[in-house]
Amino acid sequence: MTAVRDTGAPRAATVFLLTDFGTTDPFVGVMKAVILRGCPGATLVDLTHGIPPQAISVGAFWLERILPWLPPGAVVLAVVDPGVGTARAGVVVTADGRLFVGPDNGLLELATRSDPGRRACRIDGGLLGLPEPSSTFHGRDVFAPVAARLAAGTLAANEVGPELPKLVEMTGLLAPVAPAATPSPHGEGIAAVKGVVAVVDHFGNLLTTIATGALAALGPPGKLVVEIGGRSVPIRDAYGDASAGEIVALPCSWGVLEIAASGGNASRALGVACGAPVVVRAAS
Amino acid sequence: MTAVRDTGAPRAATVFLLTDFGTTDPFVGVMKAVILRGCPGATLVDLTHGIPPQAISVGAFWLERILPWLPPGAVVLAVVDPGVGTARAGVVVTADGRLFVGPDNGLLELATRSDPGRRACRIDGGLLGLPEPSSTFHGRDVFAPVAARLAAGTLAANEVGPELPKLVEMTGLLAPVAPAATPSPHGEGIAAVKGVVAVVDHFGNLLTTIATGALAALGPPGKLVVEIGGRSVPIRDAYGDASAGEIVALPCSWGVLEIAASGGNASRALGVACGAPVVVRAAS
Amino acid sequence: MTAVRDTGAPRAATVFLLTDFGTTDPFVGVMKAVILRGCPGATLVDLTHGIPPQAISVGAFWLERILPWLPPGAVVLAVVDPGVGTARAGVVVTADGRLFVGPDNGLLELATRSDPGRRACRIDGGLLGLPEPSSTFHGRDVFAPVAARLAAGTLAANEVGPELPKLVEMTGLLAPVAPAATPSPHGEGIAAVKGVVAVVDHFGNLLTTIATGALAALGPPGKLVVEIGGRSVPIRDAYGDASAGEIVALPCSWGVLEIAASGGNASRALGVACGAPVVVRAAS
Repeated sequence: MTAVRDTGAPRAATVFLLTDFGTTDPFVGVMKAVILRGCPGATLVDLTHGIPPQAISVGAFWLERILPWLPPGAVVLAVVDPGVGTARAGVVVTADGRLFVGPDNGLLELATRSDPGRRACRIDGGLLGLPEPSSTFHGRDVFAPVAARLAAGTLAANEVGPELPKLVEMTGLLAPVAPAATPSPHGEGIAAVKGVVAVVDHFGNLLTTIATGALAALGPPGKLVVEIGGRSVPIRDAYGDASAGEIVALPCSWGVLEIAASGGNASRALGVACGAPVVVRAAS
Repeated sequence: MTAVRDTGAPRAATVFLLTDFGTTDPFVGVMKAVILRGCPGATLVDLTHGIPPQAISVGAFWLERILPWLPPGAVVLAVVDPGVGTARAGVVVTADGRLFVGPDNGLLELATRSDPGRRACRIDGGLLGLPEPSSTFHGRDVFAPVAARLAAGTLAANEVGPELPKLVEMTGLLAPVAPAATPSPHGEGIAAVKGVVAVVDHFGNLLTTIATGALAALGPPGKLVVEIGGRSVPIRDAYGDASAGEIVALPCSWGVLEIAASGGNASRALGVACGAPVVVRAAS
Repeated sequence: MTAVRDTGAPRAATVFLLTDFGTTDPFVGVMKAVILRGCPGATLVDLTHGIPPQAISVGAFWLERILPWLPPGAVVLAVVDPGVGTARAGVVVTADGRLFVGPDNGLLELATRSDPGRRACRIDGGLLGLPEPSSTFHGRDVFAPVAARLAAGTLAANEVGPELPKLVEMTGLLAPVAPAATPSPHGEGIAAVKGVVAVVDHFGNLLTTIATGALAALGPPGKLVVEIGGRSVPIRDAYGDASAGEIVALPCSWGVLEIAASGGNASRALGVACGAPVVVRAAS
């Protein structure tokens, strides 16, 4: 058995990276090189670089879901940035004790929405002495150098530029609207909870916008059915509780309802992709 | 030239990760966040997250093959876990001076089979004070926190729960049966060694279950042929010894026989996938 | 805010890895295990493992492009090695203050060509006491152990074996020939700059061999057109300056001309792949 290394010296913050850059090219590796130049010894962790190209909503969904697992003080470098090179701002957002660096296009707004103490500053590259960035890769030229200085503790979040009173809000699938709850025609509370498929994961599981906690008002899980792709599927506790190939819904590990095919790929089995409607009702 | 950093303090063990989680989603990144919270400063190395979904045998094949290269004291976090959320156990296995953490479903059994001193303990989350896990992501909720404490040295392998006298054995392709050796009809030793394709790698090379060492009894490599996908292919020493596009067998770097297409993709060229039979014979 | 960890001890160099090994198998993970055994505490950064199999030119293109962003003293372990197991040499190249380790097949030659002080030594495994390597995986058996010792500072670049007076030159797309410039028929300077598509990136953007700086002689960007795939496309400053789906050329962040489809995939939209000819002319 070994014991934890502890040098007594303060440790640089861990930098977590989430992008739509893929791993085919050295884009992420070069961002890491820039971070290590600005913060030697930084710990770098890939969250994912497999966000579908330009899919801000998928990146935002994941950032919101994973936030509770990130260490306090973590720096999150998130880049899904179709507007790179235009007038869209780069921002640093402080929320829930973590620091987020990326474009102001909704990506960071959703993940940090639940913290009433959230603060955001617009990155002013001139103020920070950054060289003129390229027009196509602010991940390398703006966000990585800022993340490095934040991680190293040589720059504070409120020193990157002027405070922004409001972040650009997420639009589309994950717009800031509560999932619709249809009142029951019988006046017995709500009759259905509606949402959409937000993410199709690596296994073909469908992660929805329906918070597991929203289902209690409908009745016990065993008495509910989930309508998706023209099918009605039951709610189970675990993948292993379904028979082989059976399509079921589960309260997944991210706090939302998930639809899975036991031992298979639910997206393919149902012919369903991001954006597909999902309805949960009491079984009739 | 720089010299090795040496702080004089004990160093946390390196944690190696192998899963079927893919890299499209932040599943692996969140496991790493959990490990770093439990073991700040841990070194984290991805073995692969590209094990085909639920393919326990492919994960087990690789763990067994790569074990000799892992540093003594390494913690291996391996999760290919179709039974997550059911009664299958989580285990910590000590073998060959390394610690393995994952589900008890054959994945760890194969890799550690050759060590007669192997010991295993069932993970008791309650004993360890772990919060109730989700039903779908024990990688994050059980295995990562345990791996973190093992790496930090704050938990010993035999403290995770009760000792398990026996691990679940690998079934299917990699079941614990020696490759069949067909006795020669002429009584001159064996006439053939049989196996299957265990893994199709990134290059389309076919890694078989036939240990290179098992071929000596058949004769010198130059006098043998390998039958696969309806073809007979010769044995060569290196990829570069084959002409362009030629399909050859080689004693590969993992101690087993490999079938490759020079400069090409043998799996596609032969139309052969995991499980395909392979026979090595003396050339007639 | 935390401050940078500084132990006062010299820090091992960062090792950057670029290969065509993919991430489906544990090949890269095992190389990292070998590096960490030889250089405990090394920082390891993936540049990419998604170079197309055996595509030396793509690996070389990226190494040359990213070199300026790598920290001085960095060790670059680059393996795209169709000749593994044959007589091709393994080399360590010192250029621009970085150390490159890999096969001598053009991969390292292109990236280091611009440094007149470049020096190269052939790796002599026997001299270094390395065990006899496998015939198929010198990344693990030769290049990783050498990279580890270089990073640890226990081996100098000129100690790995005899000096090589000349590296194998890159052939094919990236052969060391300046892009052709066609003299104008009117004697007014050059009329066109020609090149090819060197890389199709993760987004389907087409990175060309045409240096942005070579275009000034043709006229201002707004007066030029780019011919590719039977189409003429304009030059813009940023992705966001194009209308949705429009195909445009941009001076990209790597110093070369790039062709992109706004919000889309230019390679698919144009039906164009690596090697396709590209011509830039003054608009008529």
